[in-house]
Amino acid sequence: MRPIVTLLTDFGTADGYVAEMKGVLLTSVPDATVVDVTHDVPSQDVEAGRLAVARYWRRFPPGTVHIAVVDPGVGSSRAALAVASDGRFLVGPDNGLLSPALLAQGARVVALPVPPHAAPTFHGRDVFAPAAALLLQGVPLDSLGMPHDTPVVRRTAEAHRLADGTVAGQVITIDRFGNAITNLVTRGAAEVSVGGYTLAVRRSYADVEPGAVVALTGSNGLVEIAVRDGSAAQRLGLARGAPVLLRALR
Amino acid sequence: MRPIVTLLTDFGTADGYVAEMKGVLLTSVPDATVVDVTHDVPSQDVEAGRLAVARYWRRFPPGTVHIAVVDPGVGSSRAALAVASDGRFLVGPDNGLLSPALLAQGARVVALPVPPHAAPTFHGRDVFAPAAALLLQGVPLDSLGMPHDTPVVRRTAEAHRLADGTVAGQVITIDRFGNAITNLVTRGAAEVSVGGYTLAVRRSYADVEPGAVVALTGSNGLVEIAVRDGSAAQRLGLARGAPVLLRALR
Amino acid sequence: MRPIVTLLTDFGTADGYVAEMKGVLLTSVPDATVVDVTHDVPSQDVEAGRLAVARYWRRFPPGTVHIAVVDPGVGSSRAALAVASDGRFLVGPDNGLLSPALLAQGARVVALPVPPHAAPTFHGRDVFAPAAALLLQGVPLDSLGMPHDTPVVRRTAEAHRLADGTVAGQVITIDRFGNAITNLVTRGAAEVSVGGYTLAVRRSYADVEPGAVVALTGSNGLVEIAVRDGSAAQRLGLARGAPVLLRALR
Repeated sequence: MRPIVTLLTDFGTADGYVAEMKGVLLTSVPDATVVDVTHDVPSQDVEAGRLAVARYWRRFPPGTVHIAVVDPGVGSSRAALAVASDGRFLVGPDNGLLSPALLAQGARVVALPVPPHAAPTFHGRDVFAPAAALLLQGVPLDSLGMPHDTPVVRRTAEAHRLADGTVAGQVITIDRFGNAITNLVTRGAAEVSVGGYTLAVRRSYADVEPGAVVALTGSNGLVEIAVRDGSAAQRLGLARGAPVLLRALR
Repeated sequence: MRPIVTLLTDFGTADGYVAEMKGVLLTSVPDATVVDVTHDVPSQDVEAGRLAVARYWRRFPPGTVHIAVVDPGVGSSRAALAVASDGRFLVGPDNGLLSPALLAQGARVVALPVPPHAAPTFHGRDVFAPAAALLLQGVPLDSLGMPHDTPVVRRTAEAHRLADGTVAGQVITIDRFGNAITNLVTRGAAEVSVGGYTLAVRRSYADVEPGAVVALTGSNGLVEIAVRDGSAAQRLGLARGAPVLLRALR
Repeated sequence: MRPIVTLLTDFGTADGYVAEMKGVLLTSVPDATVVDVTHDVPSQDVEAGRLAVARYWRRFPPGTVHIAVVDPGVGSSRAALAVASDGRFLVGPDNGLLSPALLAQGARVVALPVPPHAAPTFHGRDVFAPAAALLLQGVPLDSLGMPHDTPVVRRTAEAHRLADGTVAGQVITIDRFGNAITNLVTRGAAEVSVGGYTLAVRRSYADVEPGAVVALTGSNGLVEIAVRDGSAAQRLGLARGAPVLLRALR
């Protein structure tokens, strides 16, 4: 089986930075399958990157190496990490971007040394891609660096239950369609209040008429607010952090 | 030969949805060559997606599996399709997106069952990618679902000939360069009237001076209106549906 | 080892033009590794494309074929080139886009014939991708066309030393983060004057506080002006060509 490496960055592609990383990878591991996740993470938005990592890191087969670089602290004293978690590997900065894998049971973490020749502005090329190349070649994680037991971990804000049983949550991100993803989950019938609307949690966008606002459980298990064939973020004026209330229905 | 699968969506890449699909594909078929066509189809613009599919679906080698997902009706009762046409396979929603392959002689179509666990908002991950994985592994089309003999077909509006021999057509799309692609074709010398201009159909952008408006036969055989080193859509105020007249020249 | 081909264009991906090129490549060389560099070069900006090519062309392993198409002159009499340089191959228009490889010692260049069936508007599909496919299959460069000894070469404007020892340079490009890359280099301590600021050349963005303006030596060895966690281009009103002065510090 050919080794698989994925790339998530906030670099865009036009300047050629991502291509430099791909060149480093393919020079070391010519038969690697290099998979673009995205290079369009909003510039320096570690939180948006983290939420994307949460979606895909376990969807790839065991042995996959995920490179993720959204790195406002590059060149500072922040550590550079390599992680083994649930059979996959991840490399990236120690700023919480890799939290979804760090929080899984049994995760192991090492701090990567920064070689003297590394450009202080481009660890993607000079630290993370070379470390990924070693992992793709089967080099054990532990030989890449010293154990690093206190990585920075970011967590999605937790919803909390109010005295009357209502659960108070919030919008955690807006996706490309303008859907507002929340930190709320529900197994049974429920309704949400958000931006002046109260909405039953439905099954699908298609359960309402085009142009209508709808709440539903999204493909990652979280309640989201959408407008069928439109943007909920625009219609309801929602952004990250906007409050959402959830009430179970009997 | 390694199996080839292509991806066209309107998902963008930043949220990680496309990466989830790639993970599903590579988990089932680790040696697949996964080719990004685009994830930048304008949101929910089935027509733009269809015109792109028309350009590329036959350019790939026989055996290629094309996934195309622009799917405003996801979660509704619209069928999910797998198609075999001219040696290639395509999977996607039954909304006309796959029409270029459906209209080819000998096309066969089945409706894919939607498994109970499928997220009603993300058939790309839970219906289309798994079906593509089966096709990549050589599973016959007919074993993927029941025959579906009445798929939705979209066609490019046809130009029509007026009493005086002029052919009345229209702009069918605007490309990234601002070129306006029409539904007109010509083999011999001709001129077009559009947006107040009358233009001989030339061979290439380079047949006029920089900044000039030019009509020519584009790389897919259709007449297009361009501005050399500029945008015809902006200059002439053209959008999809704008009328264009073509007259043969003796 | 599987043959590697990279793609840089200004086509965007949505229209399907890039997919047509990938289809041509994979039809001829099904086991090729097709690497997207970028399709987001600003429309017809040969200079931006050239600077990206300079970054990555040598980072890929020997034998790699780089396709680069930013081609305002397509369909004119400009030549179509294939280049062998430092063990890599490049194909693209004769407009200076491939200069980084042309300027390397021992570069060889041939002019590709344009087949009669080639669309005069899309040499990417009908001239460059087929030539790349031949190179990927091991066909010698010399058999692809006649030697072409006077290719168009673009060079980065050179900085020049003033009478007082100050070096007068300029901004050569703005990257995705709003960093202004200059044509200045320094090995020792130095300061730059730009947009009303005088700045010591530091090691990294992290050497200043968030929001502060910083000069540093970037990952390609050139001095750049940045704002930590912000855009220097916006803050200082910098664009390509803006003057920058560099003074060595004792």
